[in-house]
Amino acid sequence: MTVKVFGSPASTEVARVLTCLFEKDVEFQLIRVDSFRGPKRMPQYLKLQPHGEALTFEDGNVTLVESRKILRHIADKYKEQGHSKDLFGPGALERASIEQWLQTEAHSFDIPSADMAYSLAYLPPDMPLDGRGGGLPAAGMHPSHRQKVEEMLQLFEKSRKDLGKLLDIYEQRLGEEEFLAGSKFTLADLSHLPNADRLAADPRSARLIESRRNVSRWWYTISGRDSWKRVKELQRPPSAEAPF
Amino acid sequence: MTVKVFGSPASTEVARVLTCLFEKDVEFQLIRVDSFRGPKRMPQYLKLQPHGEALTFEDGNVTLVESRKILRHIADKYKEQGHSKDLFGPGALERASIEQWLQTEAHSFDIPSADMAYSLAYLPPDMPLDGRGGGLPAAGMHPSHRQKVEEMLQLFEKSRKDLGKLLDIYEQRLGEEEFLAGSKFTLADLSHLPNADRLAADPRSARLIESRRNVSRWWYTISGRDSWKRVKELQRPPSAEAPF
Repeated sequence: MTVKVFGSPASTEVARVLTCLFEKDVEFQLIRVDSFRGPKRMPQYLKLQPHGEALTFEDGNVTLVESRKILRHIADKYKEQGHSKDLFGPGALERASIEQWLQTEAHSFDIPSADMAYSLAYLPPDMPLDGRGGGLPAAGMHPSHRQKVEEMLQLFEKSRKDLGKLLDIYEQRLGEEEFLAGSKFTLADLSHLPNADRLAADPRSARLIESRRNVSRWWYTISGRDSWKRVKELQRPPSAEAPF
Repeated sequence: MTVKVFGSPASTEVARVLTCLFEKDVEFQLIRVDSFRGPKRMPQYLKLQPHGEALTFEDGNVTLVESRKILRHIADKYKEQGHSKDLFGPGALERASIEQWLQTEAHSFDIPSADMAYSLAYLPPDMPLDGRGGGLPAAGMHPSHRQKVEEMLQLFEKSRKDLGKLLDIYEQRLGEEEFLAGSKFTLADLSHLPNADRLAADPRSARLIESRRNVSRWWYTISGRDSWKRVKELQRPPSAEAPF
């Protein structure tokens, strides 16, 4: 066995890679390092990190650390095996379209969706988010806490606007084709799974998906894949429910 | 951070060490390696292994692989910290008693309790185990399967007899003292936790504990410790409920 993944499945970067390995039926080892510092502290992997955590991928002599580069490597090297033979396209034309949507994900979807999940993890679930920052309670909040809440409200609002515009383009595209790069599930779709899942997990951000008919259909299809379900199981933190 | 544990918390050897580290509030890293071989196979750590799995412990320049040696090391080196200062005794007299019960666990409890859990994992839950091997169905079983079932019934029966005799001694001892080595929780008790937990988890073996008043009281006390509850949470296999 030559393929090794170092990292936590809770990281969106790592989750992206694991999904691809399951899709391609690649044998691999997952090496996780959890740090414990006495019973009252949380293991490191539960830390909120807005833009992912450490990831290292080894395949024989190849070592890579960027998740989308790793996806391309896996889809090419293990092209002939697994559920989807054409994750990175059967030919140059398809590959160009996949590459375009992979880059759209990396440059326009990844950061606002991670920012949105990060801000929502901070904002109380019952705080109204009316889109004009008017959800901030008038009183009874410590100034430093108030400042952080305001910052998170702004981050939420900015990411909602950016994602809204982007998903309008997705909605149109997914009205023309079943998947982003055409009629088949590819790396372009796969790459969206970890952060789209974080949006779908909170009702305050899930509306971005649910309010768009084609995006909803696409999300329902790709999130139902066995590879992704398996990653979701791996993401359950083993000690999140520890009694202290 | 210098302490590193390599292994799966599902292993009884590893679980023993983790419990001790939590008791002593030692900072450490847990390094887990899970192997995946395509969506239909189980990760390696779910394999049934009768007598534990690989374990390596590193503390600075010290490297150890035997769980009870590791317990002694942790209890001595980190004596002054954590919940229990006297896990390996405040003095030579106590230490002699702890050592005696540690060795009883290693030589007389470990193997029959692991054998019993191993045989019960193989035997169908509804197969009657009447203590004379009479539980074996008369017909409708492939010869090779029948042979394996007979073997497992014999293993169950032998371990039940051995454990029964041993636990009668424990019952007497625990009528005189609250814990095995005296009035305090020590390594002697801690060392029993992983395999005693496997007995307690199956009604067919739990009777060995429940039918003995003092052993039951002792088990209830030691299994309720925060350190052990935390290890139990870590033992939940992250992909055991994967949908395929």
